[in-house]
Amino acid sequence: MAALFDKVCIAGIGLIGSSLARVVKRDGLAAVVTVLDTNPTHCAQAVELGIADTGGADVAEAVGGADLVVFCTPVGAYAELAAAMAPHLRAGAIVSDVGSVKMAAIRDIGPLLPEGVHFIPGHPIAGTEHSGPAAGFAELFEGRWCILTPPPGADEAALAKVRALWEATGSMIEVMEPAHHDRVLAITSHLPHLIAYTIVGTATDLEGTLQQEVIKFSASGFRDFTRIAASDPVMWRDIFLNNKEAVLDVLQRFTEDLTAMQRAIRWGEGDKLQEVFTRTRAIRRSIIDARQA
Amino acid sequence: MAALFDKVCIAGIGLIGSSLARVVKRDGLAAVVTVLDTNPTHCAQAVELGIADTGGADVAEAVGGADLVVFCTPVGAYAELAAAMAPHLRAGAIVSDVGSVKMAAIRDIGPLLPEGVHFIPGHPIAGTEHSGPAAGFAELFEGRWCILTPPPGADEAALAKVRALWEATGSMIEVMEPAHHDRVLAITSHLPHLIAYTIVGTATDLEGTLQQEVIKFSASGFRDFTRIAASDPVMWRDIFLNNKEAVLDVLQRFTEDLTAMQRAIRWGEGDKLQEVFTRTRAIRRSIIDARQA
Repeated sequence: MAALFDKVCIAGIGLIGSSLARVVKRDGLAAVVTVLDTNPTHCAQAVELGIADTGGADVAEAVGGADLVVFCTPVGAYAELAAAMAPHLRAGAIVSDVGSVKMAAIRDIGPLLPEGVHFIPGHPIAGTEHSGPAAGFAELFEGRWCILTPPPGADEAALAKVRALWEATGSMIEVMEPAHHDRVLAITSHLPHLIAYTIVGTATDLEGTLQQEVIKFSASGFRDFTRIAASDPVMWRDIFLNNKEAVLDVLQRFTEDLTAMQRAIRWGEGDKLQEVFTRTRAIRRSIIDARQA
Repeated sequence: MAALFDKVCIAGIGLIGSSLARVVKRDGLAAVVTVLDTNPTHCAQAVELGIADTGGADVAEAVGGADLVVFCTPVGAYAELAAAMAPHLRAGAIVSDVGSVKMAAIRDIGPLLPEGVHFIPGHPIAGTEHSGPAAGFAELFEGRWCILTPPPGADEAALAKVRALWEATGSMIEVMEPAHHDRVLAITSHLPHLIAYTIVGTATDLEGTLQQEVIKFSASGFRDFTRIAASDPVMWRDIFLNNKEAVLDVLQRFTEDLTAMQRAIRWGEGDKLQEVFTRTRAIRRSIIDARQA
């Protein structure tokens, strides 16, 4: 594939950033890849792994001359980073991100970018419970969705370039309103993570012996939650703080449903339980059919 | 391995029953394996698959002459089945089960067994979200735990035989008090399943378009819950009805913790969220170290 960009700057070289850098390098999508990260070990690791040409914490150096800058940090770091970056962005540059909350990205990055810089927020629906540059891999995005939420009147050429980048990763592209994205993700991602973190937290509060047994016999359901609850703590803290309304709204629905289940158990209403347990099987079938299982 | 039994009767030829039958056949642990099941298709399938010699719904025929009968039905079927079986059990026979609630097994089977029949309840901590005889496989129990909860004064020779059977499956054996088993499983298995069923149920209540998007973008966390929520509905209904106290107790703890998380999100208490999210990572590490991941 021909190079899409002269210089790509990946800001934050974790699981997603390093996976994206791997694709850019693999497919020769940019002449130069540079990493902007405050962690010098991770910068060195990225260069060593051959997924970046240079890396460091100097904002001016990292974004200077870049025609694409992708925010891959926790969402909570966006505003400060955008402010630091703004004076050094070249005219016509594209700024994008991979964060799980699009309204916050638009709120925190958009207003700080200088005239002539194009902002195309994005969110690849992919990940693992592992963190850091060594955890990334080029195939992470294959067959997964990448949602783009361009603001009204976004530059068409810039949008096309970001789209081409994600298509190169093997993703399927969906364009969506940012508020709608945040509501969908609150259900499919944020609430499941909150619940997994909570139940694993409940287990860590158990007295010593019982906790050892929970670990020993975790294959009966619990361990699937621990995988989800091993995701990056700072990234997830920022997601909940920045998608508060949508998360609290679906959490309220979930709590009502859980209370109904609790009541059905207490009063021995087996038919109610069975009805819900039967209904949920169909959703699994749909996910398998949609090849997202 | 030498045959441990003359005739083994598997009562209920689902995922667990058929997996156990496969091991018995593979290792020649019994001269004859017979299936007792009200579903004639499943009986025929078991014989066809070569994992049983005979199969049918006639209780007298199935358990007559058996020196081991293993209940592999939903827990709610135990009492009726035990009553039907009792007159036909031979003296010295061993009765066991694989259910997820041991107090209920002891309550529902124990008192109905005639003098001279040995009851050794068991619970292999293994499974998948698939059901039925075709879903089973001999390796299901390998490296997993099997918990035995023999009543006080249980026959040592009978216990040794049941232990030998599960050791042949590749399981590690743990002997436990039944009430303690039910409390541990309420945390590691019953609560996670209840929560997974509930969240997937919450999603099925969403309006049409949103539900389609939940399926499409499920790779972001939700799909892991749908796998768990695809487990057998009747089996799970019976588990909740029969381990009510322990489930309601851990559910109460979970609800308190979830409310605390909700409050931390509402008030923007990022440090509290991060503290929990960091703590839960350690549990994942322990499960990987215990080789149950």
